[in-house]
Amino acid sequence: MDTKSLISSDSQRPNVPYIHKVGVPPKQNLLKEFKSTVKETFFSDDPLRPFKDQPKSRKIVLGLQAVFPILEWGRSYNLRKFRGDLIAGLTIASLCIPQDIGYSKLANLPPQYGLYSSFVPPLIYAFMGSSRDIAIGPVAVVSLLLGTLLRKEYDPDTEPNEYLRLVFTATFFAGITQATLGVLRLGFLIDFLSHAAVVGFMAGAAITIALQQLKGFLGIKHFTKETDIISVMKSVFGSIHHGWNWQTIVIGASFLTFLLVAKYIGKKNKKLFWVPAIAPLISVVLSTFFVYVTHANHDGVAIVGRIEKRINPPSLDKIYFSGENLLKGFKIGVVAGMIALTEAVAIGRTFASMKDYQVDGNKEMVALGTMNVIGSMTSCYVATGSFSRSAVNYMAGCQTAVSNIVMSFVVFLTVKFLTPLFEYTPNAILSSIIISAVIGLIDYDAAILIWKIDKLDFVACMGAFLGVVFKSVETGLLIAVAISFAKILLQVTRPRTAILGKIPMTSVYRNIGQYPEATKVPGVLIVRIDSAIYFSNSNYTKERILRWLTEEEDNLKETYQPKIEFLIVEMSPVTDIDTSGIHAFEELYRSLQKRDIQLVLANPGQCVLDKLYASGFPDLIGENKIFLTVADAVHTCSLKIVHEV
Amino acid sequence: MDTKSLISSDSQRPNVPYIHKVGVPPKQNLLKEFKSTVKETFFSDDPLRPFKDQPKSRKIVLGLQAVFPILEWGRSYNLRKFRGDLIAGLTIASLCIPQDIGYSKLANLPPQYGLYSSFVPPLIYAFMGSSRDIAIGPVAVVSLLLGTLLRKEYDPDTEPNEYLRLVFTATFFAGITQATLGVLRLGFLIDFLSHAAVVGFMAGAAITIALQQLKGFLGIKHFTKETDIISVMKSVFGSIHHGWNWQTIVIGASFLTFLLVAKYIGKKNKKLFWVPAIAPLISVVLSTFFVYVTHANHDGVAIVGRIEKRINPPSLDKIYFSGENLLKGFKIGVVAGMIALTEAVAIGRTFASMKDYQVDGNKEMVALGTMNVIGSMTSCYVATGSFSRSAVNYMAGCQTAVSNIVMSFVVFLTVKFLTPLFEYTPNAILSSIIISAVIGLIDYDAAILIWKIDKLDFVACMGAFLGVVFKSVETGLLIAVAISFAKILLQVTRPRTAILGKIPMTSVYRNIGQYPEATKVPGVLIVRIDSAIYFSNSNYTKERILRWLTEEEDNLKETYQPKIEFLIVEMSPVTDIDTSGIHAFEELYRSLQKRDIQLVLANPGQCVLDKLYASGFPDLIGENKIFLTVADAVHTCSLKIVHEV
Repeated sequence: MDTKSLISSDSQRPNVPYIHKVGVPPKQNLLKEFKSTVKETFFSDDPLRPFKDQPKSRKIVLGLQAVFPILEWGRSYNLRKFRGDLIAGLTIASLCIPQDIGYSKLANLPPQYGLYSSFVPPLIYAFMGSSRDIAIGPVAVVSLLLGTLLRKEYDPDTEPNEYLRLVFTATFFAGITQATLGVLRLGFLIDFLSHAAVVGFMAGAAITIALQQLKGFLGIKHFTKETDIISVMKSVFGSIHHGWNWQTIVIGASFLTFLLVAKYIGKKNKKLFWVPAIAPLISVVLSTFFVYVTHANHDGVAIVGRIEKRINPPSLDKIYFSGENLLKGFKIGVVAGMIALTEAVAIGRTFASMKDYQVDGNKEMVALGTMNVIGSMTSCYVATGSFSRSAVNYMAGCQTAVSNIVMSFVVFLTVKFLTPLFEYTPNAILSSIIISAVIGLIDYDAAILIWKIDKLDFVACMGAFLGVVFKSVETGLLIAVAISFAKILLQVTRPRTAILGKIPMTSVYRNIGQYPEATKVPGVLIVRIDSAIYFSNSNYTKERILRWLTEEEDNLKETYQPKIEFLIVEMSPVTDIDTSGIHAFEELYRSLQKRDIQLVLANPGQCVLDKLYASGFPDLIGENKIFLTVADAVHTCSLKIVHEV
Repeated sequence: MDTKSLISSDSQRPNVPYIHKVGVPPKQNLLKEFKSTVKETFFSDDPLRPFKDQPKSRKIVLGLQAVFPILEWGRSYNLRKFRGDLIAGLTIASLCIPQDIGYSKLANLPPQYGLYSSFVPPLIYAFMGSSRDIAIGPVAVVSLLLGTLLRKEYDPDTEPNEYLRLVFTATFFAGITQATLGVLRLGFLIDFLSHAAVVGFMAGAAITIALQQLKGFLGIKHFTKETDIISVMKSVFGSIHHGWNWQTIVIGASFLTFLLVAKYIGKKNKKLFWVPAIAPLISVVLSTFFVYVTHANHDGVAIVGRIEKRINPPSLDKIYFSGENLLKGFKIGVVAGMIALTEAVAIGRTFASMKDYQVDGNKEMVALGTMNVIGSMTSCYVATGSFSRSAVNYMAGCQTAVSNIVMSFVVFLTVKFLTPLFEYTPNAILSSIIISAVIGLIDYDAAILIWKIDKLDFVACMGAFLGVVFKSVETGLLIAVAISFAKILLQVTRPRTAILGKIPMTSVYRNIGQYPEATKVPGVLIVRIDSAIYFSNSNYTKERILRWLTEEEDNLKETYQPKIEFLIVEMSPVTDIDTSGIHAFEELYRSLQKRDIQLVLANPGQCVLDKLYASGFPDLIGENKIFLTVADAVHTCSLKIVHEV
């Protein structure tokens, strides 16, 4: 079979243009075929390439470098790079400290846990991660997600101990999930959350988080535990007469204005990026001083209160390794881990493409997973890459992951020595900081672009958005995943087909819908199938082709034109076919036979040709019915039609 | 935008071959686009086509004919057709009566319920169905599935009343599921069970059913309630010394031999199809007479016993319409309904393609659903199309669904008058009949063909098979569905890419893997992407292209050839693109810029071009970088390379 050549009989005639045979390549053996599929699926980045043809000692070094990229880039590290990293590190540290305290509240945790999570995880990431720009720490969306999911299991106010233990359990399994995906090279799974769905989900989460901040911002004491917009609005307006605290509102509003102005300045003038970056810390310092001096806390202005002054206590013994809580923690961990991963990988890829270096998705997952596993044993909750802080890190001129080490060190000093200073920080300031931070997650431009490009994508985007805002974070997530999957299924169930015509003055055949000047060939119908033919679409494809034929025949009958004698199926876009697909083709062939029409194939690909031969289909329709190009096929068919006339 | 034309600047020069512009068709408006998507997805068969431009009265007639196809074909019915239908109907009736009694046992029901289900449903199908060859009634696989699923809820021996009520509830919801899928035009959902998975599942079910028959065949009294091969074998060999009944075995074995010989004769000589068709009835008559005369039932030969002599009693009041049992019945009904549908639609399509008529999948589902809903109210359990009886029906020369009416009438007479005759029928005969019937469900040839064509399909097939045989029917089904989905996901995650070269003496560019004689163009790398570019594969695609480039550059460096200046992406197979895909292209463009390589696109389709323009991508890379064919693109690029030199 491997030497079968399909020279059409016409190619021997002298007056006929050269017709090239369709290539039937030597068949790959089973093992080779299997290996190449596995390689493209799981090792598409060819991770072992540098290891090839190297001595053993070098292989060990390369292996260590693969796990700890710091060993690779660390060797070319120098003082110039360190200056960039130091400035960037200090900037993101000043940004992360107030954010961390705020995000802990979203996760229903005491403030120190946010700071803990900005100490250990960034340190580990710096040794294992491959992104140079990402800033690691707790983030708003994951904090909110954890907070809502965990609250369903334990009440953080009445059962703080069980709640905390479940936090560490979830963090542990989030890390395990991430690392496992990386080790098993299943990183591509997160690609199933489409860009559009992520845009919608993030925007929805941002609105939800901002709404949650109304509690601190307005000084409301009794606030709903639901996160949907309707419950929150009821709660806000229900307490308008006896729940709002005007002093809190004044402090919050004035500093929010300050933060938004700073943000605006930073946006207008890229050189002033440090203005919005240090504005939060300035707000904290000023407002804390103000409250401390005026004793506003006695007038109902809620303050952070005493934060424990100690570095991360070990928490391995708090993780549930058995019982029902193990399962609960596992479930929440998997969800939080996946979302955290999506965010981190998206950030990593964005900045990598800006500076043109490669981020290895699978390696990245192992790094993030390891940092969360270790984090769960040192009183941290799920950390990941933060959009806002990574952007600041990039603009502040970070060179390597050393900026994360600098940040981590500053946070360590803060936790060790400075926490008492935050005692009088008003909660309203933290709310303002979070509101001004999450506003950046709402990406109008992306949403508008999605609307312009693909309406179905926009539906996915809005579905995720509305799901989060009006119901809950999980609902939004579920909608996003469901629509993403539905889109894939739609794609594989209803492939496009097109009628081709000849473009004038060329031998090129193209879709007559796209090129109205293309002309049909009398007696021949040319159909292109725009997809692999699988069980999910084989019946549709067959019936669609027959419908094209029926419509065309009806037209021809009305205009008294010659009937169709050949159906040419252009197979270039048909990248693969399976048993159901071949069945469909056999049925198509039989139906055409009944109508006295011949089936001709043009340009089947290697893989399709292999399978057609394995099934004996070419023997059924005749081997001389398979051509390299549509032009060749049309030429041969036309000759036959002319001969008959 | 709608008049934008991309004439490459080179096309103006006199000495350059004519380069046709890439067609940017007028943009469809949103509503039109949406309508066409909905139409192709749900109404791809254009069901309203005959209604177009018809007077109102004619529309009513057409509408009635659409629901009751008998009104259409009935008008051209004649005596010649009736002769065919009468013979076919009598033949399938003789086959179905013993099968029905046996299948009832598989569903843990008294024998009359199988007969009931061969009376009402075929009658209704004859009026509403569009297949001419299908034979309706209870089938082995669905009976087994119902039996195993329902037994988990109620014990048919100790709680026969609850069990029976749940049977009708499940049947009701099976019908509702089928009709709903048809009405909502979601018929394509059953295409997601791939052919390979169905082959494996059916073979596994056949083996499981045959194993279950060992109980009746060997005369074992205490038999396991599990269906997996290991439990059954333990049960069979555990009772070898005190459970087997030799008289039963003698009767069973001799008649099984008779049936298999008859089957063989029918296979060898197609004209003798009636031999295997009436063999079961002959076996029943002979063995019943034998047992009645010899009183073998006193020697431990189990017999059917008294069957109630009455036509279907109404059972609407037995269906659970509330409470926990509603939910149980609903779940089981959905599963059984889907499986029944898969079988019926597969049969309908097979015979339709043999006789070249169309079976409307959605209409078919409504017919099957209605018949099961009405069946559930008249003491029937889930009926569908039977493989074995439909084949006999076809070979006996059935012309229309009237053969089902004939069969139904014969069954009616049997139920009304003849049931006492079956009192002494030995169970062993029923087991033999079932064994000889289900053997036909094991399709070795299909399995071998699947192995030859597609290894992954074979895995799905074997997974479903082994799942059914070694675990349970549901497990096998779950495996089949899971592997089918995994295959789709794999397809959309890892699209193929290929490097193209010029085929000598043509201007055709093809995969150099498939056509080793194709030559690369110096300074140009041509890559073809073989799939729509979606969020699920956009990152992979981008990285794969960059990897091709890196590999090629490494090769060129080693052989001191000129470096690559142009990357041509052949977009013909790229049928669609979404926001993530366009992002990936933008990132690709930026990466290429860093390497001083120009990005060129060849032959983007209509839909892709629309979206590229909506996103402003052509402005980014330059509009003169988009060509109609690879040949045009190569020509222009080569000219530029020559000019530079």
